[in-house]
Amino acid sequence: MKLVVVGAAGRMGRTLIRIVAETPGMVLTGAVEREGAAEIGADAGLLAGLEANDVKVTDDPLPAFAKADGVLDFTSPAATLQFSELAAQARIVHVIGTTGIGPEEETRIEAAARHAPVIKSGNMSLGVNLLAVLVREAAKALDDDFDIEVLEMHHRHKVDAPSGTALLLGQAAAEGRGIDLAQHSVRVRDGHTGARERGDIGFATLRGGSVIGEHSVVLAGEGEVIELTHKAGDRTIFARGAAKAALWGRAKKPGLYSMADVLGLNKEQDR
Amino acid sequence: MKLVVVGAAGRMGRTLIRIVAETPGMVLTGAVEREGAAEIGADAGLLAGLEANDVKVTDDPLPAFAKADGVLDFTSPAATLQFSELAAQARIVHVIGTTGIGPEEETRIEAAARHAPVIKSGNMSLGVNLLAVLVREAAKALDDDFDIEVLEMHHRHKVDAPSGTALLLGQAAAEGRGIDLAQHSVRVRDGHTGARERGDIGFATLRGGSVIGEHSVVLAGEGEVIELTHKAGDRTIFARGAAKAALWGRAKKPGLYSMADVLGLNKEQDR
Amino acid sequence: MKLVVVGAAGRMGRTLIRIVAETPGMVLTGAVEREGAAEIGADAGLLAGLEANDVKVTDDPLPAFAKADGVLDFTSPAATLQFSELAAQARIVHVIGTTGIGPEEETRIEAAARHAPVIKSGNMSLGVNLLAVLVREAAKALDDDFDIEVLEMHHRHKVDAPSGTALLLGQAAAEGRGIDLAQHSVRVRDGHTGARERGDIGFATLRGGSVIGEHSVVLAGEGEVIELTHKAGDRTIFARGAAKAALWGRAKKPGLYSMADVLGLNKEQDR
Amino acid sequence: MKLVVVGAAGRMGRTLIRIVAETPGMVLTGAVEREGAAEIGADAGLLAGLEANDVKVTDDPLPAFAKADGVLDFTSPAATLQFSELAAQARIVHVIGTTGIGPEEETRIEAAARHAPVIKSGNMSLGVNLLAVLVREAAKALDDDFDIEVLEMHHRHKVDAPSGTALLLGQAAAEGRGIDLAQHSVRVRDGHTGARERGDIGFATLRGGSVIGEHSVVLAGEGEVIELTHKAGDRTIFARGAAKAALWGRAKKPGLYSMADVLGLNKEQDR
Repeated sequence: MKLVVVGAAGRMGRTLIRIVAETPGMVLTGAVEREGAAEIGADAGLLAGLEANDVKVTDDPLPAFAKADGVLDFTSPAATLQFSELAAQARIVHVIGTTGIGPEEETRIEAAARHAPVIKSGNMSLGVNLLAVLVREAAKALDDDFDIEVLEMHHRHKVDAPSGTALLLGQAAAEGRGIDLAQHSVRVRDGHTGARERGDIGFATLRGGSVIGEHSVVLAGEGEVIELTHKAGDRTIFARGAAKAALWGRAKKPGLYSMADVLGLNKEQDR
Repeated sequence: MKLVVVGAAGRMGRTLIRIVAETPGMVLTGAVEREGAAEIGADAGLLAGLEANDVKVTDDPLPAFAKADGVLDFTSPAATLQFSELAAQARIVHVIGTTGIGPEEETRIEAAARHAPVIKSGNMSLGVNLLAVLVREAAKALDDDFDIEVLEMHHRHKVDAPSGTALLLGQAAAEGRGIDLAQHSVRVRDGHTGARERGDIGFATLRGGSVIGEHSVVLAGEGEVIELTHKAGDRTIFARGAAKAALWGRAKKPGLYSMADVLGLNKEQDR
Repeated sequence: MKLVVVGAAGRMGRTLIRIVAETPGMVLTGAVEREGAAEIGADAGLLAGLEANDVKVTDDPLPAFAKADGVLDFTSPAATLQFSELAAQARIVHVIGTTGIGPEEETRIEAAARHAPVIKSGNMSLGVNLLAVLVREAAKALDDDFDIEVLEMHHRHKVDAPSGTALLLGQAAAEGRGIDLAQHSVRVRDGHTGARERGDIGFATLRGGSVIGEHSVVLAGEGEVIELTHKAGDRTIFARGAAKAALWGRAKKPGLYSMADVLGLNKEQDR
Repeated sequence: MKLVVVGAAGRMGRTLIRIVAETPGMVLTGAVEREGAAEIGADAGLLAGLEANDVKVTDDPLPAFAKADGVLDFTSPAATLQFSELAAQARIVHVIGTTGIGPEEETRIEAAARHAPVIKSGNMSLGVNLLAVLVREAAKALDDDFDIEVLEMHHRHKVDAPSGTALLLGQAAAEGRGIDLAQHSVRVRDGHTGARERGDIGFATLRGGSVIGEHSVVLAGEGEVIELTHKAGDRTIFARGAAKAALWGRAKKPGLYSMADVLGLNKEQDR
């Protein structure tokens, strides 16, 4: 499968170039950066700390897309929108790990997905997406005799709490249970809290050291506890997930897909 | 729902009586022990450490079954077989937590299940049954880039390893992955082991203190780890699961069901 | 060693009677309840769910103390004060697990401890007391390149957060580091928190199910994490710790001791 | 503090150069490789992926040691022996993370330590060394009512089990308890094992993914469990520990020290 990496000179772009190089069945055929970037014309392999690979960084996506089977994209909403249209034209797989995409951009991406397979997720790691599906199922199977709590730990530099992924997991639990997270979310416990309310979904946050990201969903019933945990050991997992998504998308009909689809975890009736 | 507890004077029977008493929508209407047991004629409530409840322990199951909606049964294979036929005649739900049931008894229980709903599991805890389903799905979603390990801890008195539940979870993982557990199971690691073989499912065992039972299935990939864990805090969870199964079974057509059915986790095509 | 249990008819008193019965080298010789209690005159063994042991519950502590070597006391501050004076007179070991003791009562207990060994702790479990000592040492050994976080989980009925034991562990960490907990304690994280401040000690709380009590202290540095955890599996651990303390105290000179002394963890210079 | 890194062109040497560069109060003044190495003459900063720092890699340690305050050494036993004598002559701190040092070399290092501070450990991470001290203390404080188990997890490429660090932790537990590890070690559990023997120390091993190294020591008693865990997130922790040891050693008298000394955890009487 021939892949283009867009945003090729950024930290994520370089990681994507390395992951493409080490994934069997994949080859890098294009590397795109924005007009005026210092790296235009540089060798993409060298840029990523690999051997030279004769793919020169370019600011012209069109010819790159024309000869490729897919594009890996962790850029910005505006750039992603543009790439989305080019990928639709070229009828190649578009894997979108870009964050911060709003409803209007969403609509236009959906339009593009009528012409080519688009796989899009706010967190491209296989593990987190799998965890979200398992959490939804567990919450659905168990009634509110089981109390649900979401715990996360990140490094000392993180400036917000709870993490986006913790909220995504809380959301999955709420969906499984058929409730509105906003109305059942408990994000602070300090002092006299009173007993836990049936149906609440609690959040707790740890911060320290250089921890990349750990998330646990705890379902605690009378006499037993289930814990579903994901631990990120390094930041390549997002690039790995994107590569896996591209390979999966190659044989698919046009449409907007999620990582749960890639994992084969969406039942027919849910689509 | 009117319930009969069989084996009412045993440790599990007494626990079942207490759980029936505290479960909304349930009432104990019968308590059965084998002929000649010292407790025949005793008050079932007192026997279970509760207030007297005017249900006398009897050695005659027939009238007890006739006026009940379900029977909770953690006895022996031979006794269970007999209760199975009586429950079929009375067309009431039969919840079977009895262990050691062989293939021949299995066939006769299946025959009884043509006349009434039977719910049968080797481990009646909701949590363990849910975990097994989640493990099967996780193993199915992830390929063997992810290494699977099963860890269990039990109290110091346990005489075998790995636990039956650990093997059940390993089996669920193997099914998810479509492989034969026996051919991929690694149960000992000591000294020079060589690198891990792709596709192996490893087992590790801890023993100590009074731990009732903890099981974790670890799925470890490049840069990320998923851990799915169950912790048993007390031994009432099997009785609770049985009570839940009985309530669920009340509205069901005759048939042989598993705890995965009770949890709503069996897809139509899997039945 | 001959032991008296005071508050013998309460839940904790009954547990103490059972633990004395099963601890080698110990025998119950007295069981005391307050004047007017319904259980006066009852057999202490039967009361605790054991065989009869011919120790009658009495409301007169004096003769019971006179013929004993030690007293186990999880009652109320007022009662404990009185028992403290009687134990001092009888020169027998007084093990105090009573909570809510104020500074004035403290002074009078110290006075009593001039005549007999008194072992007193807000949490009598061996494990929690050991954990506190280990946390103090770890915090002392590592500088604030390591971030300290305290996590606790308790059952859904608990009405306050963080738990007293979590605060005790935070206090141990602060002592080890030589700082004032109050000035470095972070008890809430929600929304935009900014990066973690160097030297902070964070608290996080989970609530759910019937969890008796789990506490973890996390020390997270660049590239590595240490976690020190205690899990309570049942409520007998406080009675077991008290029994162990009594045996330890038997050979000791008069004085006020802590569970860290019992564990042999207080260095000479710290006393 | 002026530091020399020996084995400067190896993976660990390059990591040491980076850690020296980012540690306040430290500066790299020398970088040594063996005669004939391709990197002789290269800039040590560039070699480590940093800016050029004008320290040229040399094969002549003598002048480098003469103008330095300490040397960081993760090389081979033979090389370490030679560096040990040069550091003794120069009276500078010698931090030794080299593995595989035998008894004969040990004796000669001890001789060198009469002239300068030497800090030597088989595992230079602060966390693991702290954990070993805590395990020894916990095992000493608790008697064999508490069962001790050592669990470790490493990546799929590791070829032996249990890990050296797991054995080191088991050894610390055995020392704390005053027993011989070899006689109480249980390294395999499979099939009918019988009940756990009092006083045994068990080992269990997990392998999978890219896990760098996790070790837990579990002390499980009646009704409670203590878990002491270390998780390595990246391989720089050994270099960080070495840098910390060098800073600590600068003010010390000649002598052979361990990481427990650096952590301030060796009591006077233990030295």
